Parts: sequence; C-alpha cells; structure tokens
Amino acid sequence: MFPILTVTLNPAWDVTYPVDALVPGATHRTGRVAGRAGGKGINVARVLTRMGQPALATGVLGGDAGRAVAADLAAAGVPADFGPGDRAATRTTVTVVETGTGRATLFNEPGPEDGTVDWPRLRARLLALAEGSAVLVLSGSLPPAVPVTAYAELITGARARGVPVILDCDGPALTAALPARPDIVKPNADELARATGTRDLRHGAGLLLAAGARAVVVSDGPAGLLALAGRERVQARPPAVAAVNPTGAGDAAVAALAAGQLAGASWEQRLRDAAAWSAASVLEPVAGAVDPDTARRLAAQVEVEAGTAERTRAC
Amino acid sequence: MFPILTVTLNPAWDVTYPVDALVPGATHRTGRVAGRAGGKGINVARVLTRMGQPALATGVLGGDAGRAVAADLAAAGVPADFGPGDRAATRTTVTVVETGTGRATLFNEPGPEDGTVDWPRLRARLLALAEGSAVLVLSGSLPPAVPVTAYAELITGARARGVPVILDCDGPALTAALPARPDIVKPNADELARATGTRDLRHGAGLLLAAGARAVVVSDGPAGLLALAGRERVQARPPAVAAVNPTGAGDAAVAALAAGQLAGASWEQRLRDAAAWSAASVLEPVAGAVDPDTARRLAAQVEVEAGTAERTRAC
Repeated sequence: MFPILTVTLNPAWDVTYPVDALVPGATHRTGRVAGRAGGKGINVARVLTRMGQPALATGVLGGDAGRAVAADLAAAGVPADFGPGDRAATRTTVTVVETGTGRATLFNEPGPEDGTVDWPRLRARLLALAEGSAVLVLSGSLPPAVPVTAYAELITGARARGVPVILDCDGPALTAALPARPDIVKPNADELARATGTRDLRHGAGLLLAAGARAVVVSDGPAGLLALAGRERVQARPPAVAAVNPTGAGDAAVAALAAGQLAGASWEQRLRDAAAWSAASVLEPVAGAVDPDTARRLAAQVEVEAGTAERTRAC
Repeated sequence: MFPILTVTLNPAWDVTYPVDALVPGATHRTGRVAGRAGGKGINVARVLTRMGQPALATGVLGGDAGRAVAADLAAAGVPADFGPGDRAATRTTVTVVETGTGRATLFNEPGPEDGTVDWPRLRARLLALAEGSAVLVLSGSLPPAVPVTAYAELITGARARGVPVILDCDGPALTAALPARPDIVKPNADELARATGTRDLRHGAGLLLAAGARAVVVSDGPAGLLALAGRERVQARPPAVAAVNPTGAGDAAVAALAAGQLAGASWEQRLRDAAAWSAASVLEPVAGAVDPDTARRLAAQVEVEAGTAERTRAC
C-alpha cells in the first residue's frame, strides 16, 4: 500500500521561539511558541506526499513531543505509523527566530538517551514494514538510544528482503553504514567533506563508493547535484531561484530520488527531478513544504550533463 | 502540617543546553540535556525546606514537563501538592550555557495557553490548601491560562481566611494585585522601577504602599534590602560575597520573609535574615540552593539600619 517507507530514528518536535533580538548572555521572554513535526525522514515523507507518491513515515516516537509530532503529521495528511511508542522521549529542537531580521539560531538536542529504546524490537518492526515496500529511505541522525550500526543493520535486513535503500545521514552513522552497501547515499558537500576529508565532490563520492555505497548522489546547494552510479556520472544544475529557506532542500532531493528508484527512472531523470524538487523546496518557508507545479516547471530548466565516471574510464 | 504554602502558577521545567559557543544564526548540536524543576515559588519552597521550615509547594502542573517537575521535587525532598493536574502543559525554559565561558542565555516560554486551566476550580483548590496554612507565598509570572487578576483573587480569598500573603511578581500581575492589599510585596529594584517609573527605592516603595501594599521589601542585589512597613523603615546590607549565580537570590529573600512572618519576627530580624539567605544563595550554582550554615554565618555580618518612614515623619 505504501511502496516507499521513510524511517526517522531521531524525529523532533521543532519548536520556534520568537524573540525581538537574540542577545547572548541575556534573558529572553519568547513570544507565542509554535511547533511542527521535524526530522529528515519526516520531511522526505512530506515531500513524497506532495508528489502524490504513497509514502509511509515510520521510526520511533515517545512522550508529549512524540504525540505532538504524530498529531501534526495526521493534520498534514502525511501517512505515518510510528508503532506503539517506546520509553524514548522524542527530542525537541529549538529555533530562535529574531522577529526583526528573521535570523534563525538552532539548538538540536541529541535525542532519546541510551537505554530508552528496545532496538532489536524496533529493528524487527521497521523491517516488517519494509518487507511490504519497494524503497526504504533512512534519513537523519541517530539518537544515543540506538547503536551506531543501526542503519547498517537496517540496510542488511532490507537487502535480505530485496528492498533497495536510500541513506541520508552524516558522521559516524554514515561511516558505520557504508560496509552494509546502501544502494544510494546522499550526502551534501559539507557532509561528504567531513566523511572523506576532501572537498572535491567527484573524489569524495568515489571514496564513498570504495567504502561500500552502490551509488552516491552529492547535493551542493544552488550548484546542483552530482551522481556517481556504476559507470555513470551525471550532473544536474538547477536554475537560480530566490531561496527563502534552504533547510529541507536535501530532503526534497531524497524524495525525488526515492520516487525515481520506485519508477526505475534513468539517472539523468532522477537527478533532474532531484534538482528541481530541491530548488522548489527552498522557495518555501518551512522544511518539507514544496509546490509540485513549481517543481515540474523548474524540472524543464534543470541542466543535466551525463558522462562516464572517471574511475571506470581509468580502467 | 505545612504552615507555609508557596504557590507557583507558572512553574517550568528548566532545561540546560550545553554548547561550545553560542553563535547567533548558527545551528548548534547541544550536549546532554539536563533538566530541573523551576519557578519562583518552587525555589522559595526549596529554600524553606533547607531552612527546616515545613513548606508545601503548590500551583498547577501538566504534561511531560509537569511530571518531570513533580519528580524532581520529590527527589529533592521538597513537599509538593500540585493537585490532579490540568490540561495545562507546563512550560519549558531553555538556558543555553557556553561550556568555555559559562555564559548563560535564557529563553522563557510564556506558559500554558488561554483556555487550558479551569481557573475557578484551581483557585478553590489553592484557597482550600491556604486555609490550613499560616503564610501564603505567591511568586512568579502568570501564564496566559489564568486571568491577570489571579493574584488579587487569591489575596482576597486568603484574607477572608485570615492568612497573610507575601507577593513576588512583576508587571501587570503586580499592578493588578495591589488593590487586594497584599501583606508584603517584594519587588527587586528593576521590577519596582518598571511598576512605578522611579528608580528611587524609597519613593517607589512608597508608591506601592499607596497603591495598596501593606508592606514593601525591595531587593537591590548586593546593595541589600529596604523595607517600608507601617511607620518603620529598615535597611539591610549583606557582606560582600563572590556571587556565582544571582538567579534565585530574590526567592531566598522571600523564603526568609515567609519564615519571619510565621515567627512574628521584628522587621530588623526579617531583613537581616532575608539579606543573609539571599547572599548565601548567590554562592550556589543553581537557584533555590543555599547552605544554611553559610546563611547563619552571614546573618551576623549583615548591617541593619532601622528608622521611621519619611512619609509618616512628614505627617
């Protein structure tokens, strides 16, 4: 029923604190606090829902913040099944927004503490859900409550069930997942540099392939995307847009990659769509929001260049 | 059983976010998040408990944050009865602490929203508790969920039951409470200036008396305290101490005033104790903590000066 499953192991209740101005060292009385369901996999599911792609958001939720996330997804019409809950208390992220300038300062909690999640049980539930899907998306940070190998274990389990995996994470969670051979890894340029030590996108992407990724798509903001997949090398450059909020652009790209994986689209088509949906998403004030008509219009303006990966040419 | 009752209508779950450095406009991954029960009336109850004075903390709690506050008070051995809870969700306050410098930046949420508290029912419960006590302490801000006249109504109800009231609040909550004739009002110098428009402590305190307060005690940080009560004018200056955290100094002063009210102490003694406990509290890293031996030692060093209030001399 839901061919695409998005997993968010560290979702968040994103809270916004309006203040007149952020003054380090001062006491601020905030304006009325607003909240919104957050987390990268949740944003991917939001975009897929806007695409008309049947996607189900899952992961782990708990506590008041978890209930608020679930209620917000229900109100937004995003299909979600986060199971019976756990002892984990979903984290809060705080965004302090200065009402004058709109400048945003973010504070991200690490998430549920060690010992609050029964990981083997959660893993079994997620893999049971994955069994009925055609694409599995793993997005975002890992909380202290799950092992750093959590994504590797899910990739291995999904592979055993014949379900391809798209992975979007950073740091140790990424490094630990690569040996499990995820089908597509989507770092942004900064994450790639942290993982590989190089800011050269082709070189860095090649290193991730060597470490186990079957394909790598690097997002580089307004410069677009680079994919290395087997013998193919594809680049896509979106038209220039007046960005309102870059947060969530990578999640929109992942949503397009998931839809392309489901459709068996060419890499040229996948990158074109990823660049277009990503560009359309930065026009919206909140992560996970995107206008489908804008994305389709921008897709026609994306410049796509396909070639052969250097590393294979060199053979 | 609890001669002193402290009411906190807007308690908080005080959360600390450790960050390397606070950079406005940046995204911060926080260290391990720590929480602590907060709210001025709760701090007063903490100090009274340290004094060995039987005090009961009450008010309204709700949601995960409310449960965390109640659990923290229980763990600290502070007697508390916040009733059966309500639909109100206890607020969170966030303190961002920079690990290098220790600099603290605070964000205080406004508290439970309008419509989430059944105020007449809560008022009746609080006054029923007050009926069995000898001193009622009302401390801190009012959430949007209760009327701005909440303190005035509690003062009127307490008076009808013969229970004297000490009030420590600010802004409209203070202004609206004065006509109900609280027995002691304890603003700090900034709050007094906001309420009266003057930074002259004697003049400002006189204006609060004229507006309805039966006695006024102004706290002025390291400079000490000034009391105007009937024909008496008393000043107390604590010895200089190396302050670690000034937050909660006012709450320690209120705790001493409540204990003095209960004992029927002279105004000289009340101010001496208030100055000493306040000075002892700033030596501790968290609000509501205080070492009784230090407070008793400092009390002997407080300089107290008593006179006759000018306004009565002028008659």
